[in-house]
Amino acid sequence: MNENTDMGRALQATPATVLTVSYDGSGFSGFARQPGQTTVQGELERSLSTVLRRPVELAVAGRTDAGVHARGQVVSFPYDSSVLNPTAFVRSVNALAGERIAVRAVRSAVPGFSARFDAKGREYRYRIGAGPVPPLFLRGVAWWVPRELDLNAMRQAAEHLIGEHDFKSFCVTVSAIDKPTKRRVSLIEVTEEEHLGESSIVVRVVGNAFLHSMVRVIAGTLVEVGAGRREPEWVAHALAACERAAAGPTAPAHGLTLWHVNYAEGVWL
Amino acid sequence: MNENTDMGRALQATPATVLTVSYDGSGFSGFARQPGQTTVQGELERSLSTVLRRPVELAVAGRTDAGVHARGQVVSFPYDSSVLNPTAFVRSVNALAGERIAVRAVRSAVPGFSARFDAKGREYRYRIGAGPVPPLFLRGVAWWVPRELDLNAMRQAAEHLIGEHDFKSFCVTVSAIDKPTKRRVSLIEVTEEEHLGESSIVVRVVGNAFLHSMVRVIAGTLVEVGAGRREPEWVAHALAACERAAAGPTAPAHGLTLWHVNYAEGVWL
Repeated sequence: MNENTDMGRALQATPATVLTVSYDGSGFSGFARQPGQTTVQGELERSLSTVLRRPVELAVAGRTDAGVHARGQVVSFPYDSSVLNPTAFVRSVNALAGERIAVRAVRSAVPGFSARFDAKGREYRYRIGAGPVPPLFLRGVAWWVPRELDLNAMRQAAEHLIGEHDFKSFCVTVSAIDKPTKRRVSLIEVTEEEHLGESSIVVRVVGNAFLHSMVRVIAGTLVEVGAGRREPEWVAHALAACERAAAGPTAPAHGLTLWHVNYAEGVWL
Repeated sequence: MNENTDMGRALQATPATVLTVSYDGSGFSGFARQPGQTTVQGELERSLSTVLRRPVELAVAGRTDAGVHARGQVVSFPYDSSVLNPTAFVRSVNALAGERIAVRAVRSAVPGFSARFDAKGREYRYRIGAGPVPPLFLRGVAWWVPRELDLNAMRQAAEHLIGEHDFKSFCVTVSAIDKPTKRRVSLIEVTEEEHLGESSIVVRVVGNAFLHSMVRVIAGTLVEVGAGRREPEWVAHALAACERAAAGPTAPAHGLTLWHVNYAEGVWL
C-alpha cells in the first residue's frame, strides 16, 4: 500500500483512467483482491496489466462482498487513457476478464482522482422474487421469498430510514475502534418490475456511503414488515436501538447489485 | 407411444391437467425425453409421477431443442386436477424439478385435450445483445453480436416473412418424406428492451406452428440484414428459393425462448 501511495505521488500529473464495470458476483470471493481467491479486482487488474503492459492497482467506489453483483461499479487508476482507442481497449480487457465481468465505459478524470474518495453518492438495488413460484431467469439476481409481500407496508417502513442516522443496527461488522456509523440515506424506493417475463420487487437505496452489508440488512428488515411479521413502526425502534440484533436478518448477497455511483461533474477531463 | 394412445382412450372421460412451465434450457438436452440424457420432459415427468404417485406422460406445445428456454411452455396429461390444492401441488413439483424448471400455473381442460394438438398459435422471442460490450446479466438468454444492428433494416426484412409461405429455406432438418413446410407467420416485431440495466434487441415471432429451428434461422437471417451484410429484399429471395442454403445462419439456441402458447377459450374447464 505504501508503494502504491508513492506511485500515486510520482504520477500526480497523470490523469486517472476511470472504468464503469458490471459483474456477476456469483463465482467471485467479492471485489477485493485476496491471495489464492478469484476476485473481481484480481481479474480486472490482471487483465488491465496484460493489455497495458504495466502493473495496475485499482481504487474502487464500492467494495462489494462475495456474491454481490454490480451494474455500474466504478474503478480508477493513474493512467493517461487519451492514448487508447476506447473500443479496442474495452474489447481487449473484456476478452481477458472472463464472461462474468464486462467493462462498459472508459473515461478520463483529473490527476489524483479516486473512484473511492471522490464518490458523492451510491445507488444499490436489492431484488426480491416474492410468491409461491421461484424466480427462474432472475434466480441469480433475486432473493426468493416464497410468499406475497405488502409493498405499501414496506414503503411505510422505509420512510423511517430516510435522512442522516446512526445506522449501527444495520451494520454487520462494527469495528472495535468505534468507527463512525452515521450515514445519510436520501432515497428508498420499493417498486415492482417485470424482466424476462418475471415480476420482482426492487428496493432502490441511494445514499452518500454505506456500512458493511447495510443495504442487505435494510432489505431483510423491510421483508420482515412486508411479510407481516412486524409493523412498519418497528423499523424506527430498530434504528434507534443502535445494535445489530434490533433490526431484521441480512438478506442474501445474490439479490444485491451496486447500481450506480455519482461524481461531481468537475472531475471529468 | 401405442401404450400412451391406449391409455388416452381408456381415460377419455378424465379431464386434462395443463401446466404452464418456464425453464432455463441451459443444462438440458432439449425438451423431449431421451434415455441417459437430462431433459425437461424427463425431469418434469419424474417430479409429477412422484407427487401424484402414478406414471405421467406429457403432451407438449413446443418440443424445444437443447439450450432453448421457455417462459410459457404448455404441457398436458390426463388427470383430474380438481382434487389438488394448486399452490401445494406447484410447490411440491417445483421442489423436485430443480432450480432450472418452474411450473407457474395449473389449469383443467376438457377430456382429450392435448397441449400439442390443441395449440392455436405460438409466440417465440429471440434476444440479441448487440454492440461492443457483451451482455452480462442477460448472457444466458441473449446472443451476443459484437456490433450495432440497424433495427429498421431488420423490420423491413421481416415484412417479407409475414403471411403463409413455404418456409423450407428456414428449416434446419427437412424430412426425406417431404412433410409439408408451409407455415403461417402472423407477426414479426423487432424492438429494443432494457432488462437489469442492459439493453437487448428482441425479435418476437408469432405463428400457428413452426418448422425445426425456424425462429433461429429467421433471427440469423435478420441479423445478416441488421449488420448490413445483406439488403432487406434479400430475405424475399431467400424465402422464394425454398432451400436452406439461401437463408442466413441458424442463430444460437440460448437466445431463443418459447414465450407463449394460445388455445381456444372453450377448452378450459
